[in-house]
Amino acid sequence: MDILKYLNETKQEFDRFLDLLLPPENEQPPTIHRAMRYSVFAGGKRVRPILTLAAGESIGGAREILFHLGSAIEMIHTYSLIHDDLPALDNDDLRRGLPTCHKMFGDAMAILAGDALMTRCYQVLAEVPGLSCSARLAIIREISYATGTVEGMIGGQVVDLESEGKPIDPPVLEYIHRSKTGALLTACVRCGALAAQANEQQLQSLSEFGRKIGLAFQIVDDVLDITASSENLGKTAGKDEKVKKATYPALYGIEASRVKARELMTGAIEDIGILGESAGPLRSIARFVYDRTA
Amino acid sequence: MDILKYLNETKQEFDRFLDLLLPPENEQPPTIHRAMRYSVFAGGKRVRPILTLAAGESIGGAREILFHLGSAIEMIHTYSLIHDDLPALDNDDLRRGLPTCHKMFGDAMAILAGDALMTRCYQVLAEVPGLSCSARLAIIREISYATGTVEGMIGGQVVDLESEGKPIDPPVLEYIHRSKTGALLTACVRCGALAAQANEQQLQSLSEFGRKIGLAFQIVDDVLDITASSENLGKTAGKDEKVKKATYPALYGIEASRVKARELMTGAIEDIGILGESAGPLRSIARFVYDRTA
Repeated sequence: MDILKYLNETKQEFDRFLDLLLPPENEQPPTIHRAMRYSVFAGGKRVRPILTLAAGESIGGAREILFHLGSAIEMIHTYSLIHDDLPALDNDDLRRGLPTCHKMFGDAMAILAGDALMTRCYQVLAEVPGLSCSARLAIIREISYATGTVEGMIGGQVVDLESEGKPIDPPVLEYIHRSKTGALLTACVRCGALAAQANEQQLQSLSEFGRKIGLAFQIVDDVLDITASSENLGKTAGKDEKVKKATYPALYGIEASRVKARELMTGAIEDIGILGESAGPLRSIARFVYDRTA
Repeated sequence: MDILKYLNETKQEFDRFLDLLLPPENEQPPTIHRAMRYSVFAGGKRVRPILTLAAGESIGGAREILFHLGSAIEMIHTYSLIHDDLPALDNDDLRRGLPTCHKMFGDAMAILAGDALMTRCYQVLAEVPGLSCSARLAIIREISYATGTVEGMIGGQVVDLESEGKPIDPPVLEYIHRSKTGALLTACVRCGALAAQANEQQLQSLSEFGRKIGLAFQIVDDVLDITASSENLGKTAGKDEKVKKATYPALYGIEASRVKARELMTGAIEDIGILGESAGPLRSIARFVYDRTA
């Protein structure tokens, strides 16, 4: 399959859903809705929603449901980016090649826009049309735990912040990867599966796929932070090393990191061997994640 | 009934539930859990959870369910206080007589602790034991809209921020009250009713009660900001006037504000006339809210 075409078309379709699901710019009070939309439409690749869709479709899930679900997940992902970029946290002026939310709207509005995107995510999840109440609740649990403090996104962010400038400890690095980005990426795949009424074996395989792809994605991101230019990256390159962030290449070197990402990619594809042809997009995404380092 | 005894005993029971429902301090990573607990246990009156309980019990709801529900709501309320107090927003050093979260833990941890309390609220709501899936979802919808940007808490906070230092416009003041504090207070009462399987008439009466009590509560708070000392208030008194906040007494004067609060209190008690003796605590709470101004 033509993975670039698939990614591009799917991204466009998610952008259409996000536009429908976010309050319009002229809805009162307009400033907050402008700030929410600014960050959501500032050029994201929609990796998380695309993973949700591909996982759900690999076992026959309905596209309409999966587009709602993935859009809600992209909102919660965007909230985390807006808050991470704040001066009190990572203090980033640039994200995806554009000024960050607080640079455009001020710190107060950026804090509230992040809060608002998380809130909107739960509104949408509670109302996904065509899904049973119990599936919607299972998905809300999945997302809320993946973004929480215990083995979730916030926990990972806390440990990441507290590790800056300290010697890197392998188990701590593993915790950061698993929690800060891995948990939500795995949840994307699992939510797609839950929305498609996966059986236990399918859910298990897809969870394992999600775990490996999540870690591979993070390693590749860290490698690119070193090897790519700011222009290609759309954000300040080399920033991790400058603030002595705990990263895979910092600990094991670039070459070993590439090897590790490749192993994870191959393992992830093996994990979904039982899924057959409908998992084609998932396999292509796995390869694509790795190919970014090459 | 002895309202002070009722409020005090109920508060203690909520504190016990909150202690059970928040991650322990030594759970990894400890800093964030300490920050979450610090703000939750920094002396709140538990007005919102007590309203949830009293509303649910007025129509025969189960206490165990209502204590879970009210505790989750107190978490989302505490998130909003932590974020409102940040230097980028209201820049408050003192809350309930104690240093605010960012004064104790720094801005980054306070932002994340707020995020984490909102997230934990949805985890708890998705898992309230003894409630049907559809009731849990209805409650998640209720809370997420009451705290959202459109006629909800974040919307009210945005307009409040944008109105500072400007001449006060009555419809804008009404929007701020209705959205910033009114929506969540009404939602507390409605969620108690939903958890107790209220019929349409009961839900209607309790919603109207909640709306009036919510507004009365805000007016009383604004009056106290002027008439009480910082010591009695547990926060910086006179702050609203200093930053030219849009408040009821600033627009209509203290005496007219007291009259308005009294009308709302009387009206609220009339609204729940159909509920009989089991609504005793709700009526006492309504009177108590007003009596604070006397």
